[in-house]
Amino acid sequence: MKVFTDHCRRSLESIKEQGRYRTFTALQKRVDSFPYYVRPDGSRILVWSSNDYIAMGNHPVAVAAACEAARVMGTGAGGTRNISGTSPVHDELEAELASLHGKEAGLIFTSGYVSNQATLSTILNTLPCGPAHSWQCFSDAKNHASMIAGIKGSRAVVSIFRHNDLDHLESLLRAAPAEAPKLIAFESVYSMDADIAPLAGICDLAEKYGAMTYLDEVHAVGMYGPHGGGVSERDGVAHRIDIIEGTLGKAIGAHGGYVTGDADVIDFIRSTASGFIFTTSIPPMTAAAALASIRHIRQDHARRAKLFERAETLKAMFDAAGLPRIPSVSHIVPLHIGEASLCKAVSQRLFDEFGMYATPINYPTVPRGEERLRFTPGPLHTDEMMTALIDALSKIIPLERRRAA
Amino acid sequence: MKVFTDHCRRSLESIKEQGRYRTFTALQKRVDSFPYYVRPDGSRILVWSSNDYIAMGNHPVAVAAACEAARVMGTGAGGTRNISGTSPVHDELEAELASLHGKEAGLIFTSGYVSNQATLSTILNTLPCGPAHSWQCFSDAKNHASMIAGIKGSRAVVSIFRHNDLDHLESLLRAAPAEAPKLIAFESVYSMDADIAPLAGICDLAEKYGAMTYLDEVHAVGMYGPHGGGVSERDGVAHRIDIIEGTLGKAIGAHGGYVTGDADVIDFIRSTASGFIFTTSIPPMTAAAALASIRHIRQDHARRAKLFERAETLKAMFDAAGLPRIPSVSHIVPLHIGEASLCKAVSQRLFDEFGMYATPINYPTVPRGEERLRFTPGPLHTDEMMTALIDALSKIIPLERRRAA
Repeated sequence: MKVFTDHCRRSLESIKEQGRYRTFTALQKRVDSFPYYVRPDGSRILVWSSNDYIAMGNHPVAVAAACEAARVMGTGAGGTRNISGTSPVHDELEAELASLHGKEAGLIFTSGYVSNQATLSTILNTLPCGPAHSWQCFSDAKNHASMIAGIKGSRAVVSIFRHNDLDHLESLLRAAPAEAPKLIAFESVYSMDADIAPLAGICDLAEKYGAMTYLDEVHAVGMYGPHGGGVSERDGVAHRIDIIEGTLGKAIGAHGGYVTGDADVIDFIRSTASGFIFTTSIPPMTAAAALASIRHIRQDHARRAKLFERAETLKAMFDAAGLPRIPSVSHIVPLHIGEASLCKAVSQRLFDEFGMYATPINYPTVPRGEERLRFTPGPLHTDEMMTALIDALSKIIPLERRRAA
Repeated sequence: MKVFTDHCRRSLESIKEQGRYRTFTALQKRVDSFPYYVRPDGSRILVWSSNDYIAMGNHPVAVAAACEAARVMGTGAGGTRNISGTSPVHDELEAELASLHGKEAGLIFTSGYVSNQATLSTILNTLPCGPAHSWQCFSDAKNHASMIAGIKGSRAVVSIFRHNDLDHLESLLRAAPAEAPKLIAFESVYSMDADIAPLAGICDLAEKYGAMTYLDEVHAVGMYGPHGGGVSERDGVAHRIDIIEGTLGKAIGAHGGYVTGDADVIDFIRSTASGFIFTTSIPPMTAAAALASIRHIRQDHARRAKLFERAETLKAMFDAAGLPRIPSVSHIVPLHIGEASLCKAVSQRLFDEFGMYATPINYPTVPRGEERLRFTPGPLHTDEMMTALIDALSKIIPLERRRAA
């Protein structure tokens, strides 16, 4: 249909003019050399932007579990969970996830995106206090696109509170109708800002105003807390969170998403969420890899310690070199650039001249003027790699910009 | 939050009272015995309801590709497509899918559900004819939940046409504003009714009224057409369809979904669809399995022939036994039961007494009175298995119900 094709062409031109057009860089992840990836021409690239945060996607326990499952159970589930697509490994994985977060039940989705979108829209389309009272949803201003998709796809009245701002959240809770059902949706670690939500404070407000809590821990699961249960485990508040959502695709090194919570709540979502019911379940080989990985992670405390040690080391090296680091209380290390074209240029020169990859983060992912590069050092990033990175950045980023930091 | 937990409990009770509560049957898919699955207690179950329609999920080329990819590239992609999650195998798979459908470009999503939801909502939220003209979307009454989610999640004006009814579709197209952009959304094979849409007739109407065509081929890809390009290939109309959507999780035997179409249209979706951008890409091992499977399928004509021969044989055996088969022009063989409790009971007795599994399809998936069992015989279902199935069904289903057919 010509009118639509023309529209697409015009939109793409506009995106290009704004410097927002993205071309994907094909990089082969490698078990034998992670975090070095391989380009189609055979050259190696040192990747600083993987969300395989603790290198579990390359861990022998995960790889062996995936291969064994593929050999025994094949490459696909072959059905929805209800129509021959539930393997015992799916049940085991859901029990493991519930146990990880100290909850009664867990439910696997095909991605973290889908788990947020499907769960939030399903909850917020109910009318637990009768037809006169829609949900009041309180959503952190920096929540992920998937949460926003779920909230927008519902009939809830939405109030957006300033990022991590308890006072603003309370003022909105206070202003909402007392008799309406309320849900606070937020993340623990915000991956673009590298900061962490005040979970206990949000729980206090939730209890005070009778609100349900929905926490996205995708950038924390496997890394934070004594057993990788996330920031909610670290802060001792998991029992105060109604629904903890997470991903199997970042620190766990596999693919898929999930929610955990009370048995009746999870069973309700299982029984009514369209995005859960009408989709093929994740392959047994993926579930098996995730299960093996989580079981390993829960007792591999050294791996978690190493992640944070590496992140702190990189932060210190950035500071010593006068590189304008954005403050971070998490394992994510953002570097302020402040200009879209410069951000892209720095990333491109890192790639072309130094064989390193760090994704430029531009508007609309962050506000204009806050453009940045985002580094996620992991247990396998060595001191030598970090030294090489600092040297490269020091050569690329103009001295005056470093001084201005 | 107690009020919501109470709501969940009440809803679940109501679902149970209506006989609609689903418990998942854990069955381990097995490469070495498919279509026999294994229960947690070790017993074998003959499965008649898998969407691994041509057993590619167990095929050595798919299993070997997955294992090799897991060993080389690990168990997860570790990032979104834009942030280090594009492996060369993702690019290759997209090129292969475009080629399969004779299109310029392809785009992989994390599931068929997401491909429909994200693509349709993205298209239908544009205003290619200016702000005064929202999209007019013409949607088949039996479209899948994922298409409905995408359409409902948009600002389009929706007209639902009677299932596969060209006259009704034309009357709705004629009544719509001439200057508005129009999209017809439909499937080729409808899996619950086992019928096939009149693709050429829909294309004729689309051209007459200047509408865009969006075709879901998830139950046809890999099976229909000389090379598995779907019913659109079989009917020689693929070039007349603007967007062909498919899945990697049924006949292809892996996991994920995709769309194919004009390069600019696909690039626009790639660049703007939230459900594509903000999600971890499918694991390289899954993409590798899908790629190997498709390459195999395109030249394995015997496998496709065997599928249809097996389906026709089962249909003939149902007819000979006087079992009330629902007419089918596809590889899917539905058996009319017509009562929710009986449908569940027949399925349960098949399972308990005869070690066979066929999912009961009840309201709301089909209208009340049209409850059915749905059989998907594949290349590995033998005559002996079919004879055993007919014997079992003949014992279970009351004679008078068979006679009434």
